[in-house]
Amino acid sequence: MNPVGRLYGIGLGPGDPELLTLKALRLLQSAPHVAYFAKAGRRGHARTIADPHIRTGTHEIAMFYPVTTEIHFTQADYNRQLANFYEESAARLAAHLGAGEDVALICEGDPLFYGSFMHLYIRLRDQFPVTIVPAVTGMSGCWSAAGEPMTWGDDILTVLPGTLSAEALKTRLQHTDAAVIMKIGQNFAKIRAAIAECGLLERAIYVERGAMKDEKVVPLAQKDDDAAPYFSIILIPGNGRRPDNGQTE
Amino acid sequence: MNPVGRLYGIGLGPGDPELLTLKALRLLQSAPHVAYFAKAGRRGHARTIADPHIRTGTHEIAMFYPVTTEIHFTQADYNRQLANFYEESAARLAAHLGAGEDVALICEGDPLFYGSFMHLYIRLRDQFPVTIVPAVTGMSGCWSAAGEPMTWGDDILTVLPGTLSAEALKTRLQHTDAAVIMKIGQNFAKIRAAIAECGLLERAIYVERGAMKDEKVVPLAQKDDDAAPYFSIILIPGNGRRPDNGQTE
Repeated sequence: MNPVGRLYGIGLGPGDPELLTLKALRLLQSAPHVAYFAKAGRRGHARTIADPHIRTGTHEIAMFYPVTTEIHFTQADYNRQLANFYEESAARLAAHLGAGEDVALICEGDPLFYGSFMHLYIRLRDQFPVTIVPAVTGMSGCWSAAGEPMTWGDDILTVLPGTLSAEALKTRLQHTDAAVIMKIGQNFAKIRAAIAECGLLERAIYVERGAMKDEKVVPLAQKDDDAAPYFSIILIPGNGRRPDNGQTE
Repeated sequence: MNPVGRLYGIGLGPGDPELLTLKALRLLQSAPHVAYFAKAGRRGHARTIADPHIRTGTHEIAMFYPVTTEIHFTQADYNRQLANFYEESAARLAAHLGAGEDVALICEGDPLFYGSFMHLYIRLRDQFPVTIVPAVTGMSGCWSAAGEPMTWGDDILTVLPGTLSAEALKTRLQHTDAAVIMKIGQNFAKIRAAIAECGLLERAIYVERGAMKDEKVVPLAQKDDDAAPYFSIILIPGNGRRPDNGQTE
């Protein structure tokens, strides 16, 4: 029996192609097959980041989502379509892996942190060996773009999806030292109101497309519209223990 | 007047020298001065990670902590000694920067996420231009070592310092989907008890020296002693929305 191929889950980081790790670059360039997710009709964020690094002759496997935001995720149809899509995509990769060929599944950010990679990983990990390459997360890219220390000493950091209710957001914000709010999009107005009601507006920073060419950093209090794309994030830096702020004196 | 030098805050990632980013490598190798923090008498974690990458002829600036855990951080003396140490260290770097020479301050993990880099950054950023290079965090290195998806869909992630009281730990654990607990060390027994009381012991994973040569991953329920070094972490992976777990049907 032939040995099976290895699945590589390769995080590419937040957007700048120079923020790939040395390991990600090596493995991306040595795999015969490179797979990635993309919205139908688009190239996809992961493939775009990888662009300067993909070797000529690499076989590419594009996996196009059947739905993204056209149907709300609480609907059974969304669930069914996505589950089928992940099954089919896993089968496509399994065909190569079963033939003894390695497959690199590339993804933006870190593979195990809100990554689509995980949906194929849980379907394939019992049959094939897997190597996961961690990466710079989108949120690290954003706070570096903002140039703001996020967490000091014993700060608690909470990562919140903007899809939470206003009440849930406020409760969470009141019980953390630092916060990162992701999945902004159409939730922007609700999120800003929750932050303001918690008295945190002056500390909050809005970052759009952090670590990408056209990144934008604005104090949230100064943002004068409610438009926010998918790759936007709100940061509330912590203010914890440090040896000169008097808190331990 | 001569132009001043630039300060580079360069994250080196969780431990594996191959988890440096391409950008970190390029900037590390082009700076005439490379500075790093270390415990007195040690080489320091950052310097060790950088070892295969440092060019011959680079001028190194080692900054040795006057105290680490010998004095508790709530004592005024700890505060005073550390504040003086950061002032002196900032002055050492400022001497080179002021002479127009670039300085790369290297650090393990991500520079703005619980990083010592921040203490010098806030002292120097008003006088000198700064570039910050984000990196793979220690926690990403750990959950990749464990091979466990950490956050799905709309999961909330909370990062907790193990220094919190048992009550605070329990409250936070009851109000999050996924958790990362850092700064374990002597807090291990208290943390494990808090996790068990929240009914989360079966989901918890203990990771020691993740992304380093001698990394160790153990289900927390199976760890049979209370010893935990500084570079250990406990992960409680989330279990959120995904299209096949029935939660949205």
